[in-house]
Amino acid sequence: MAASSYDVVGIGNAIVDVLAKAEESFLASQGLAKGTMALIDAARAEALYAKMGEGIEASGGSAANTIAGLASLGGRGAYIGKLQDDQLGHIFAHDLASLGVAFKTPPLKNGPPTARCLILVTPDAQRTMNTFLGACVELGPEDVDPDLVASAQVTYLEGYLFDPPRAMEAFRKAASLAHQAGRKVALSLSDPFCVGRHRPEFLDLVKSHIDVLFANEHEICSLYETEHFEQAAEHVRGHCEIAVLTRSERGSNIVTSKEMLHVAPAQVARVVDTTGAGDLYAAGFLYGLTHGRDLAACGKLGSLCAGEVIGHFGARPETSLRNLAKGAGLL
Amino acid sequence: MAASSYDVVGIGNAIVDVLAKAEESFLASQGLAKGTMALIDAARAEALYAKMGEGIEASGGSAANTIAGLASLGGRGAYIGKLQDDQLGHIFAHDLASLGVAFKTPPLKNGPPTARCLILVTPDAQRTMNTFLGACVELGPEDVDPDLVASAQVTYLEGYLFDPPRAMEAFRKAASLAHQAGRKVALSLSDPFCVGRHRPEFLDLVKSHIDVLFANEHEICSLYETEHFEQAAEHVRGHCEIAVLTRSERGSNIVTSKEMLHVAPAQVARVVDTTGAGDLYAAGFLYGLTHGRDLAACGKLGSLCAGEVIGHFGARPETSLRNLAKGAGLL
Repeated sequence: MAASSYDVVGIGNAIVDVLAKAEESFLASQGLAKGTMALIDAARAEALYAKMGEGIEASGGSAANTIAGLASLGGRGAYIGKLQDDQLGHIFAHDLASLGVAFKTPPLKNGPPTARCLILVTPDAQRTMNTFLGACVELGPEDVDPDLVASAQVTYLEGYLFDPPRAMEAFRKAASLAHQAGRKVALSLSDPFCVGRHRPEFLDLVKSHIDVLFANEHEICSLYETEHFEQAAEHVRGHCEIAVLTRSERGSNIVTSKEMLHVAPAQVARVVDTTGAGDLYAAGFLYGLTHGRDLAACGKLGSLCAGEVIGHFGARPETSLRNLAKGAGLL
Repeated sequence: MAASSYDVVGIGNAIVDVLAKAEESFLASQGLAKGTMALIDAARAEALYAKMGEGIEASGGSAANTIAGLASLGGRGAYIGKLQDDQLGHIFAHDLASLGVAFKTPPLKNGPPTARCLILVTPDAQRTMNTFLGACVELGPEDVDPDLVASAQVTYLEGYLFDPPRAMEAFRKAASLAHQAGRKVALSLSDPFCVGRHRPEFLDLVKSHIDVLFANEHEICSLYETEHFEQAAEHVRGHCEIAVLTRSERGSNIVTSKEMLHVAPAQVARVVDTTGAGDLYAAGFLYGLTHGRDLAACGKLGSLCAGEVIGHFGARPETSLRNLAKGAGLL
């Protein structure tokens, strides 16, 4: 196997987040299910935005957040995702470039605008997401650069890619290319409702094509249609080499055929906004995995990164994760 | 005089902020003068943005921040400023609307994009601003709605309006209309370099057309070309009915023909980003003034609002200023 140019290449929906605070009553009045991601069309995005409070805009996208976190740890990241050639698209591309992430997917020149996610953060720090996929619906297998995938130790796919029509082909192409090159394929289940929308496809992938699976408790239970976390953990044990199951304040579990490790959650002074928690956990874990750390150390790095991002508003780290990890004795 | 529909109408450069953290060395390498505002053209904006780190985007603009603060206190605000009909323009308009601020200036349909300000926040919490005026250069007297100005107790003008070519006409028209309607005209000097660029015009305005002047120590000293704050304060005493002079951690002074009051600065646990401090001080002060409070109470409201905005990243309040002021016994 050739030396790797990148630690991780992420493939995902390239999205700019619009974050605003909201009361529980606003979620109720808009019929929004707290803590989940709903797909919305352009008209609904307009209407919901018109009712939302003052917001801040920041680059987001699940896999892109993970790659941003990896870069903040000092890792070598690349990204594949579809933008429009518009102001929000320029912001998204700028932010990845500023982190040293390789991102060369050509943007659309016409058609739908850059995707946005309207994120409502309630006083309990939970985030409720409403995604208008915009340009992401045009991501296809032609956007997957075989050399790029072959040159990355891990190809990381977000489950949200099951939603846009052609991304699945890109997804399967990337997974296949990665395995041909002797690389690992990782997947995040992203969202319990997303899993529910595409359960058979997810199960097939997880059984046959995924080496490292990331899921939170709700997602893994949705995948195996059980209410019991332990049952879901047993199911996934035989399906993936490594399954990383996060449980918010209960920490995380790393499941392999041989063992089940528990990792303590990070200590956080005040949880402000959980947006990006899972994405940043994956960043820390994948940094560890691609730098030869044992699974326990990978989990600790994941917890540390998740802890940083939930301590402030927004889905990307505000401080150098590398310095933070060094300070904690993890690097 | 007819009853007022609005407490304050603000006129200013309608700008979306791009905020990123930066080291002192970055300012030095880019030849930027810390704590000030520099005007940049489109090419320089591109080049500087390409070198900046990952940012967040948020509605800004000095007078718009003030009106946003006024609205957060429960005041009735209106705004006049020029946007392009683009994504950043939509964000700016949305954010004012979400606060209940009346904003009806028609956006451009072609020509330059919505203005942006690249703001670099150094570890000492100082902000250094680089403004690409974009669509703001098209603001003109035709954008000043006479009925709107006549219906507001105070017309509030930002000094930055001296920079775009035709805004000065809008500025003078608004001041004249306000006085004809028996209303007050307030001005913020905005920036010592801006004062330096337009000193004769500023002096003429301050002497003849401004009832309430806001300036920080550097700006008022620049206006009167003195190094001594006390001298500048004496100069301004005869020129404006009320001069509000802010001095960061030394608090503020309110100067009238009869008295000079000192107002203590707000207690802030940790100063994170001084962007918007002056704008929010003006918000609190103008809320007090338009609600019949005495000058000392106006100053305390100003300090409180400035204290909120410097405690976090960004130039607009993150919490309800009304609740904050009530908690502090000021409302």
